[in-house]
Amino acid sequence: MITLDDVRSAAAVIAPHVVRTPLLPFGPGWLKPENLQPIGAFKLRGALNALARLENRSNGVVAYSSGNHAQAVAFAAHLHGVPAAIVMPDNTPTVKIEATKALGAEVFIVGITERVERAEALVAERGAALIPPFDHPDVIAGQGTIGLEILEDLPDVEAVIVPMSGGGLISGVATAVKALRPDVRVIGAEPALAADIAASLKAGSLIRWDPVERAQTVADALRDEPSALTWSHISKLVDDVITVTEDEILAAVAHLARRARLIAEPSGAVAVAAQAKFGGAGVGVVSGGNVDPALLARLLVA
Amino acid sequence: MITLDDVRSAAAVIAPHVVRTPLLPFGPGWLKPENLQPIGAFKLRGALNALARLENRSNGVVAYSSGNHAQAVAFAAHLHGVPAAIVMPDNTPTVKIEATKALGAEVFIVGITERVERAEALVAERGAALIPPFDHPDVIAGQGTIGLEILEDLPDVEAVIVPMSGGGLISGVATAVKALRPDVRVIGAEPALAADIAASLKAGSLIRWDPVERAQTVADALRDEPSALTWSHISKLVDDVITVTEDEILAAVAHLARRARLIAEPSGAVAVAAQAKFGGAGVGVVSGGNVDPALLARLLVA
Repeated sequence: MITLDDVRSAAAVIAPHVVRTPLLPFGPGWLKPENLQPIGAFKLRGALNALARLENRSNGVVAYSSGNHAQAVAFAAHLHGVPAAIVMPDNTPTVKIEATKALGAEVFIVGITERVERAEALVAERGAALIPPFDHPDVIAGQGTIGLEILEDLPDVEAVIVPMSGGGLISGVATAVKALRPDVRVIGAEPALAADIAASLKAGSLIRWDPVERAQTVADALRDEPSALTWSHISKLVDDVITVTEDEILAAVAHLARRARLIAEPSGAVAVAAQAKFGGAGVGVVSGGNVDPALLARLLVA
Repeated sequence: MITLDDVRSAAAVIAPHVVRTPLLPFGPGWLKPENLQPIGAFKLRGALNALARLENRSNGVVAYSSGNHAQAVAFAAHLHGVPAAIVMPDNTPTVKIEATKALGAEVFIVGITERVERAEALVAERGAALIPPFDHPDVIAGQGTIGLEILEDLPDVEAVIVPMSGGGLISGVATAVKALRPDVRVIGAEPALAADIAASLKAGSLIRWDPVERAQTVADALRDEPSALTWSHISKLVDDVITVTEDEILAAVAHLARRARLIAEPSGAVAVAAQAKFGGAGVGVVSGGNVDPALLARLLVA
């Protein structure tokens, strides 16, 4: 498992390249708007930390991702002058594919179940380094910097509410928060349609859901499942899970636009939907903002 | 004229109640997203400073405003437990009227040319204190805190680009910036349809445009004109003005939504439209985000 020192070290490495996002008052709680990062999502933190720590990156980097990690690796690689090859599933929103290409990465589109295999093949062919979306200590430590910042700004916070999928974000955040303030509650948020972590915590062991089933949620960045590494953090550090319906997710996107002037993608609004059900004075992490403009337009006039 | 000390003193007064907005990388420059303030606009800074310094506020406060100053005064009054009466012109977007009422203020709707008169009548009837939208040293000093923050975050900034109307924002920002870094360029941004300050600076003296003419711009928060007080700051401290067309303003709203995940109202995007024409590494102040959702929806799918 990663440590508070890993997270602090990541914070020093990534500070020059990420936005130090503020906490924004929102209802009885606050928002941590990670959609304001240059690529529109928190994923930049983990990718920057992982890439900066690679010993051999001369043959480039490879990543597989439903979108935001793709842009994060593409951005980090571009920053370090390293070629990036990104494998994306064929159900990725066009806006995320285009944004990844615009950052100078080479993009490979494959079926959703084939992406790991294809990424590993590219690594073998090119001698490149794989940067996994969540299953890596450096990625987890990078995401954990969000937890450090929340406690810096609000040492007396009651709860931190974090979306879960592969579990990299909540593993990092929970490590930082629980090391510094064990009394602060760390609450995961999941779409009910992809609530495998809620089911796993209830069962006491990691339960796998069919990827095709999980792919039904509108929260397209939350269709992954934990690895052994992230599950070991989640099972020890996460206090509770709040699951949300598809309607609650879309309502949170509209609410963020109208009341916080923030554009969130459905996945990025899942913790805010959970925050509304939590009711207390918690911080909800707005994890990403790369929404399909047509979807946002429909929600604004609904 | 106000001084750097006035702005520093305002910063200390308002710090507990405003968001310390970060700079967000955007093209070759940066954004200062004041649309993320609790009321969705920078106006909160000036209103909080002015209200905090009122000696007698027991009979309440009165303000006239096309919208964002209204919400700012309503918010500040609510915070201090003081009644607020707000006079708004009848062409104010509904979203701003509703938001002002939601903050607990009493709202009076009048014709655009009658608002000062009506506000003064309310002051006389109630023995309340008027908080003007820009024509007051405490309001100007509050807005100037944006300039302090920009220089704290980016001491080597090339230019600061600020929307102009009544001139309170740019007067405060220019005071702070020029006192600390006289070499940093302070550039005003105006809709071409309400470019009376550009015309005034060219002529070397304050030129008045017909309010009905100025009311044509979609930038509904930029239909005011400077006072003698703000003009004295602008004429001494502003280096240049960039004017923008209605199409450029709306394009900037769409660009901010797609590329910065920020919701800006047209007035709030005027400095960003000017920033695109400036081309260099400047900071554009996104001054407000209280847009009509239907307008934003149309721009997103255009």
